[in-house]
Amino acid sequence: MTKYKIPAILIFAFLLQLTPLALIAQSVDTATLGHYQRIADDIIFTGLRSGHAYDILSELSVSIGPRLSGSPNAAKAVEWSKGKMESFGFDNVHLEPVMVPHWVRGNVEDAAIVSPGSAARKLNIAALGGSIGTTDDGITAEVLEVKSFDDLKKLGDKAKGKIIFFNRPMDRSKISTFDAYGGAVNQRGGGAVEASRAGGVAALVRSMTTMIDDVPHTGAMNYNDSIPKVPAAALSTKDAEMLDGLLSKGEKVSVKLRLSCQTLPDVESANVVGELTGSEKPGEVIVIGGHLDSWDKGRGAHDDGSGCAHVIEALRILKEMGLHPKRTIRAVNFINEENGLRGGKAYAAKSRPNEKHIAAIETDAGGFAPRGFGVTSDSLTFDKIARWSPLFASIEADRIRKGGGGADIGELGRQGVPTIGLRVEGNRYFDYHHSDHDTIDRVNERELELGAASIAILAYVLAEEGL
Amino acid sequence: MTKYKIPAILIFAFLLQLTPLALIAQSVDTATLGHYQRIADDIIFTGLRSGHAYDILSELSVSIGPRLSGSPNAAKAVEWSKGKMESFGFDNVHLEPVMVPHWVRGNVEDAAIVSPGSAARKLNIAALGGSIGTTDDGITAEVLEVKSFDDLKKLGDKAKGKIIFFNRPMDRSKISTFDAYGGAVNQRGGGAVEASRAGGVAALVRSMTTMIDDVPHTGAMNYNDSIPKVPAAALSTKDAEMLDGLLSKGEKVSVKLRLSCQTLPDVESANVVGELTGSEKPGEVIVIGGHLDSWDKGRGAHDDGSGCAHVIEALRILKEMGLHPKRTIRAVNFINEENGLRGGKAYAAKSRPNEKHIAAIETDAGGFAPRGFGVTSDSLTFDKIARWSPLFASIEADRIRKGGGGADIGELGRQGVPTIGLRVEGNRYFDYHHSDHDTIDRVNERELELGAASIAILAYVLAEEGL
Repeated sequence: MTKYKIPAILIFAFLLQLTPLALIAQSVDTATLGHYQRIADDIIFTGLRSGHAYDILSELSVSIGPRLSGSPNAAKAVEWSKGKMESFGFDNVHLEPVMVPHWVRGNVEDAAIVSPGSAARKLNIAALGGSIGTTDDGITAEVLEVKSFDDLKKLGDKAKGKIIFFNRPMDRSKISTFDAYGGAVNQRGGGAVEASRAGGVAALVRSMTTMIDDVPHTGAMNYNDSIPKVPAAALSTKDAEMLDGLLSKGEKVSVKLRLSCQTLPDVESANVVGELTGSEKPGEVIVIGGHLDSWDKGRGAHDDGSGCAHVIEALRILKEMGLHPKRTIRAVNFINEENGLRGGKAYAAKSRPNEKHIAAIETDAGGFAPRGFGVTSDSLTFDKIARWSPLFASIEADRIRKGGGGADIGELGRQGVPTIGLRVEGNRYFDYHHSDHDTIDRVNERELELGAASIAILAYVLAEEGL
Repeated sequence: MTKYKIPAILIFAFLLQLTPLALIAQSVDTATLGHYQRIADDIIFTGLRSGHAYDILSELSVSIGPRLSGSPNAAKAVEWSKGKMESFGFDNVHLEPVMVPHWVRGNVEDAAIVSPGSAARKLNIAALGGSIGTTDDGITAEVLEVKSFDDLKKLGDKAKGKIIFFNRPMDRSKISTFDAYGGAVNQRGGGAVEASRAGGVAALVRSMTTMIDDVPHTGAMNYNDSIPKVPAAALSTKDAEMLDGLLSKGEKVSVKLRLSCQTLPDVESANVVGELTGSEKPGEVIVIGGHLDSWDKGRGAHDDGSGCAHVIEALRILKEMGLHPKRTIRAVNFINEENGLRGGKAYAAKSRPNEKHIAAIETDAGGFAPRGFGVTSDSLTFDKIARWSPLFASIEADRIRKGGGGADIGELGRQGVPTIGLRVEGNRYFDYHHSDHDTIDRVNERELELGAASIAILAYVLAEEGL
């Protein structure tokens, strides 16, 4: 056997290049991983065997129901959440008051094609959240269809006096439905402003869903104080297709729109907070959050009753198992995610002396089967979180990806706190989102419970190991 | 810098141990993987943008509906499948005839608690497929509850003259619902035989689901020619819990059971076959299959209308894209998976001169979001299949695991053909399985389409690259 002389430094360099730096810095020894794996498996077992997530969701989304910020139901939900956390024996259960917007849909909400007479029919609409109403007589005007704000600008004077119909569908060819939503939702958020800027008298916006049916999907819209306010409503996708069909044939179509929605004075509401106080470093906090408010359509079962159930159930499982993490795990049911983010902002703005947020985890993508987490942080922190991925492999929820978080914890993120979003199977979310379809029969008990278990596992390991 | 003498063989050995042998043997070069990745991405795009899977499923599970082997609807489904494959221009579309069992439920199917009078009520039942009926007067007998065949044996003479109530639930703490099903389904398959062997007069079996509701789930059961036949029916889980509650209190409970189900003479039916004939090696075949028959409860939307839609749509996408794979891809809609496997057996038994099966892929776990494949083969073949996993990563369907296949291709597997099963999100399958819940509204269009795309990608790459 011949022998070669090889400089040791080269061998070391060779070994090094085989081992990503992150792994050197962040790897977990087998014993530690094994320890947490046993706990993770127990958490999953406990949840599947005798979890409460579905019952919790049922109380919130069936017994209480829709709970738009400022509504009597939202107030009930706040009290219920506090009571629920107390009933499970969480530590330091309390409300953190915050003023929230109070928009109401009112009793009148209708639209119809009034000409041509041959096409006369009722349209399935829902006022967008925050929209002004119309006069009692409503608005009757010709409809002008556009696919984008650029299209609208190019039409110049043609938009004057018209109801502007924004009809760019969510791109169903996108693998991520959230990407498809992101590519269309500016029509809902900004349609009224752009319609008004162009001289239009109202905005009709194709519902944000790839389903073709009769159910309109509401959601938030914005005004700009320097542009006159015009009313805005979502139109069901079936009606959007039908209207597009008429207009494509060159028909002049007029629609009458009547809305009695209005914005009332702000109302006091609250974030609901409960904890498992850290046994060694109680001032170091891992937040786990979902939002308590929903739209007034449907029952807010996936959005975000499931998130509230996830975080309450996650803490409940840890308590049932008698675990005492070193750092504090704080469950927050935020208020007013849908139309103001007042809860998330107030939480982040509150002075919390002697306290440091280690990480914030939000679940606001529905109660579907969990698939992993999305993380917004620096790379080293990401690697520290990603090293726990094997704990979620048995339930195939181990895909930890860069980018993610949640609206309620966005402000914490801007303060430098690593933010993490639960990633779930996403194909169905926008079928239900902000519509009458968002009811508990669309939530599966096991899938919901596995989401809670995923949150519990990640929160526990971060509370033990820090970042 | 000091220099050390290191034997080259040690360095080589060191390098080798860093590289699993399978990777050395089966790795794919970057250019090849890139080529297939582009095709895979196109398949997914084509399916999501303008797929037909949901329309195909709608024709089968809504327009035709339930289609138990031997029924007029099953005959319609066979004709429909052939017509559908022809309409898409598949090659060599034909029927492969096979005789199938013909069991019918009949008009009478009821059960009720008749004593104690205070508990008298109707029970939600469904005869198990293959069960004999009762006389017109029915069977009235005391109920004896057991959790296992062993329990029953231990009870000895106590079982004589009783209706044996098999009430071991699916274990909800299992991560895999298929494992939970596997741990309980012997009660359905063998309950009647064991009840009769113990001297019982009928079997009532808790439905195979973790849902607690009023809907019974049917399914196949077997008789043993040396044991007298007694009737068998599934009981809804809610009624099973209720009955268990009464019996736990020590009540003597009698039930009256009436069934008019019966087995009629065998009927001629057929597997439906269509191909994309290989451009270079037409005699080398990759089978992609689902089964056309369903139970007579519900609409067979997930089980296995989705599988039929998957394989027809997979071939349709490849055709739409103008792909001409080297080897033949053969879509098979098997008949009689549910209660006889006659289609799968006939397919495997048929003489096919000058033909070799490279692999068989079955999809029979529902139209849920795909997560990967399960493979039954030797290790080298497994590695050859698993190396294509990156092609499915964008839709998170890249978990290729050992073990899997399908009932219809089981016989091919025993002949040495590698068998592969599409793995899908499995938490909800048994909520719907073999019951009135198995309807198309439980199937999501995107999830169904992604299953078809997954089949198309794997079939195409195997048809190009072989095994």
